[in-house]
Amino acid sequence: MTGTEVPSQPQGGPPQAGAPAHASPLIGDGDALDEGFELDPAFVEDVAAALRADDKGLARTLVADLHYADMADLLERLDGEDRRLLVDAIRDDFNADVLPELAGDVRDDVMDALGFEDFAVALTELDSDDAVYVAGKLDADEREKILSRMPQATRALIEQGLSYAESSAGRLMQRELVAVPNYWTVGETIDYLRSTRSSPDKFHAVFVVDPRHRPQGVVELHRMLTSKRPVKMADIVDPEIDVIPVDMERDEVAFLFRQRNISAAPVADKSGRLIGQITIDDVVDVIEEDAGQEMLKMAGVRATDDSSLYRSIMTTAQSRFLWLVVNLGTAFLASSVIGVFEKSIEQLSALAVLMPICASMGGNAGTQTLATVVRALGTRDLNANNALRIAWKEIFVGLINGLLFAVITGVIAYLWFHDQMLAVVIGTAMVTNLIAAGFAGITIPLVLDRWGLDPADSAVVFLTTVTVVVGFFSFLGLATWIML
Amino acid sequence: MTGTEVPSQPQGGPPQAGAPAHASPLIGDGDALDEGFELDPAFVEDVAAALRADDKGLARTLVADLHYADMADLLERLDGEDRRLLVDAIRDDFNADVLPELAGDVRDDVMDALGFEDFAVALTELDSDDAVYVAGKLDADEREKILSRMPQATRALIEQGLSYAESSAGRLMQRELVAVPNYWTVGETIDYLRSTRSSPDKFHAVFVVDPRHRPQGVVELHRMLTSKRPVKMADIVDPEIDVIPVDMERDEVAFLFRQRNISAAPVADKSGRLIGQITIDDVVDVIEEDAGQEMLKMAGVRATDDSSLYRSIMTTAQSRFLWLVVNLGTAFLASSVIGVFEKSIEQLSALAVLMPICASMGGNAGTQTLATVVRALGTRDLNANNALRIAWKEIFVGLINGLLFAVITGVIAYLWFHDQMLAVVIGTAMVTNLIAAGFAGITIPLVLDRWGLDPADSAVVFLTTVTVVVGFFSFLGLATWIML
Repeated sequence: MTGTEVPSQPQGGPPQAGAPAHASPLIGDGDALDEGFELDPAFVEDVAAALRADDKGLARTLVADLHYADMADLLERLDGEDRRLLVDAIRDDFNADVLPELAGDVRDDVMDALGFEDFAVALTELDSDDAVYVAGKLDADEREKILSRMPQATRALIEQGLSYAESSAGRLMQRELVAVPNYWTVGETIDYLRSTRSSPDKFHAVFVVDPRHRPQGVVELHRMLTSKRPVKMADIVDPEIDVIPVDMERDEVAFLFRQRNISAAPVADKSGRLIGQITIDDVVDVIEEDAGQEMLKMAGVRATDDSSLYRSIMTTAQSRFLWLVVNLGTAFLASSVIGVFEKSIEQLSALAVLMPICASMGGNAGTQTLATVVRALGTRDLNANNALRIAWKEIFVGLINGLLFAVITGVIAYLWFHDQMLAVVIGTAMVTNLIAAGFAGITIPLVLDRWGLDPADSAVVFLTTVTVVVGFFSFLGLATWIML
Repeated sequence: MTGTEVPSQPQGGPPQAGAPAHASPLIGDGDALDEGFELDPAFVEDVAAALRADDKGLARTLVADLHYADMADLLERLDGEDRRLLVDAIRDDFNADVLPELAGDVRDDVMDALGFEDFAVALTELDSDDAVYVAGKLDADEREKILSRMPQATRALIEQGLSYAESSAGRLMQRELVAVPNYWTVGETIDYLRSTRSSPDKFHAVFVVDPRHRPQGVVELHRMLTSKRPVKMADIVDPEIDVIPVDMERDEVAFLFRQRNISAAPVADKSGRLIGQITIDDVVDVIEEDAGQEMLKMAGVRATDDSSLYRSIMTTAQSRFLWLVVNLGTAFLASSVIGVFEKSIEQLSALAVLMPICASMGGNAGTQTLATVVRALGTRDLNANNALRIAWKEIFVGLINGLLFAVITGVIAYLWFHDQMLAVVIGTAMVTNLIAAGFAGITIPLVLDRWGLDPADSAVVFLTTVTVVVGFFSFLGLATWIML
C-alpha cells in the first residue's frame, strides 16, 4: 500500500499511430496552453520568435510536448513563412496525426514544406480512415504523386477508401477493427487480444461475426470486463445492432449515432460482409461540421472545406462573389418594384422614407422561421407527420406579430408624418408581409428538401425575393391605390 | 464450429436503466423505421389511429419494440391529445430513458400525462447525469413536487447536481464511474469488475486514483483487454490526463473532447478529488446544440430549449417579438437617414429606386464575414494570434468585391437611367459600404467576444446598423453632394 505516485509509462519503441504519442501538459503545468486548454498566444509568439531567429533547437524544445491537435492549432496560427520554418524544424519527428486536424489550406502549406516523400511517409503512418480523409482533400495530381510513393498495400487501401462517395459511410469508416467468431468465449477473446499483434492500437468494441464474416452483433468492452471467462460472446452480444451500409450518407450515420447513443457500429458491404467500423469520434466531427455549415450556407459562405479562415484574399473574395451576385439580383428586383411606383414617390416623398421598413421586417421574421425550419430539418425533428401543423403555426405566428407590429409601426408613422391613411397603409402592409414571410419561411425549405435540395443553401434567396417583393409592393401599391 | 445463428440475449430481470432496454428493428425488418433509421410517417399514423380508436392493446403492441430514442420521436410527432393517450397506454412499462430525449414542451405534456408520482419513479431510474438534466428543465415548483416523491439518496444526488451552474461541467457529469487504486493489477481490476454489483451498467474507461481519491490517469478499456493479468494498472495508464474542473464551462469541455479525441474524462472538485466523469456521448449533444444554436441566434430565434418547434403559437410569437422590435429600430434608423435626404429624393426620384441596393449588398457581404467569424470563434480557430491578419483580409475582400460590384452596379444603373454621375455615385457607395461591411463583420463579433458577450446573439443588429446607415448615407449623401 505504498506509492501515491504513478510511475510514468515506459517509453519503449516509437509512438504508435492512432495512439496519443505526446500527451499535453496538465493545467497550469506548462506555458503552451491556457486554462481553457487552448494555445497561449504568448507561447505561439515565442515559437515564432525562435523560428525567425533561426533557432530550430529552441523551437523543437518548445513544441516537443505538444499534443498533435495543439500542434495542428499552432501550425494554423503561424503565418505562412513561420509555418514552413516550423515544419522544417520538426521534420524528423513529425507526428502524422497532425495532418487530419489541419484546415485544408494550411495542410497544403505543410505538404509543400514536407515534400511529397515525407508527406507520403506520414500518410502511411495514419489509421486508414484518417489517411483516406487526408488523401481525399488533395488535388488529383498531388494525390497521384503521393500515393505513388507509398507502399503498395497502404496505397491500395487508400484508393479503395477513395472509391466510396465523399459523403458516404465508406469514407468515414476505419478498416482496422476486432472481429471474433460468434462461438468464442470471453476468455478465448481476451487471450486472443492479449496475444495478437494485429489488433488495432485503439478499439471501443468487439464485433461478433458469423462464418461468412457478416456482423452478428457488437460487444461493448465493459461487458467483456464484467463477464467471467467461460461466458459465450454470443451471450453478451447485443444482437439487435444497426449495421451501416457502406453507401449510407454521412449525415444519416451521424443521426443514427446521436439517436442511439452508440459508440461504434459495423459497416457492411453490399453482400453484408463486415468491412469496417465507424466510431463516435469520427461522427463528432461530422456533427460539428454539418451543424456549423448550416449557418455558413444560410449566410452565403460556401465552405467547401471545414474552414475558410486560412484562405487567401483572392480565393475568399471569389468564393463569396456568386452569392453576392444572386443577392444583387434580388436587390435590383426590389428596385424594379419601386420603379413601378416612381410616380407615387414623386407625389409623396414620405413613401420613400418609410418603404424599406415592411420589406426589412418581413426579411427578419422570415429568417426566424427559416432558421428554425432548417435546424429542425437538420435534426430531423420536422417531418411528414408534423409539417402541416408547424406550417399553420408559423403562419399564425406571422399573423400575431404582424398585427402587433402593424400597430407599433402605424403609431410611429403617424407621429412622424401626421397622416392617418399613411399609418393604416403601413400597418396593413406589415401584416401582409409578416404572414407572407411566415408562409415562405416554412414552405420554401420544405419544398427544397422534398426536391432533394439543401434548404440551407438556397432558401434565403427565395425568401428574400418573397419578402422584398411583397414588402415593397404591398406598401407602395396600397399607398398608390388608397392615398393618391 | 457450428451455429451461424447467434442465440438471443436471455431476458432475465427488468431492463437496467442506461442500457438500451429495447433494441430497434433492423433495416427493413419492421414497419416502424425507414431506411434512414427514422420513424416511418405511416407507422406514426397507425399508432395515432389505434389510440383514437381507444385500442390501447394494439398501440402497445405497435410500440413494444421501439428504441427509447424512437419512442421519444414518436411522442414528439403525435399531437398533444394522442401524446397523452400514448403515455397512458404505456404507463406500466414506460422507459425512463425516453425523458432526456424529449423536447422541453413535449416533456411537459408527458409529465402531465404520467403524473408526478410516476414521473418521480421514472426519474429515479435514470443515470445521475440524465436525471439532473431532466430535473433542471422543470419549473421550480414542479421540480419540488417531483423531488419530494423520490428516495432521499437519489434526491440528494440530483439536488447536488443542480447546485452546479447550468452551463458547467458539473451539470454534464455522471456520478457513476469505475475508479481503482493505482497499485492494482489488471487482474485485480478485472476480478473486481466481475464480482461487484456496484459498477455502472455502462462504462468506457477505468479511472486510477491515489489514496486521497485524486485522479491519476485514465485506463482505456482496450488497454486492459490487451494486457496480461499481472500488469500494473499504473503501467498502462495514460498519466497525462486532462482533469476537468467541476466549474468548467461546457463549451470548453466540448472543445477539449473534440481537440483531444478523448472518450471519457474525470471531473474533480476544488480539492482535486474525483467526483464524476464526462463521456463523449454527453458531449455530442453539447456540440450539436451549440453549433446549431449559433445559426438560430444569428437569425434572432432565442431558443432557451433545444427545440422551439413544439412551442405553442403564442409562446413562439412572444419569443420572436423582441428581436423584431430591435430590428424595427434599425429599420426606422434607415428611414431617418433617408428622411435627411427627402429633398434630394423629391428632386431625383431615381435615388429612391436605387437606394436599397447598396444597403442590401452591404448587409449580405457583412453577414458572410460575420458568419465566418462567429463559426471560427465557436471552433476556436480565431484567436489573438491571427485576429489582426484575418481582419485585414476581410477588409481587402470587401475592397475587391466592392470594386467588382461597383462596376457591375454602375453599368446596370447607367443602362437603366442613362446618367453617368448616378452610375459613379452608386459605384462609389458600393465600394464604401462593402469595405465598411467587412470591417464591421469582423470587428463587431471580436469586440463582443472580448467583452465576454455572445457574438452570435447580438452582432447581427450592430452589423445591420452599420451597413444600413453607411449604405443609405454614402449613396444619398454622395448623390446630394455631387449631383444636386
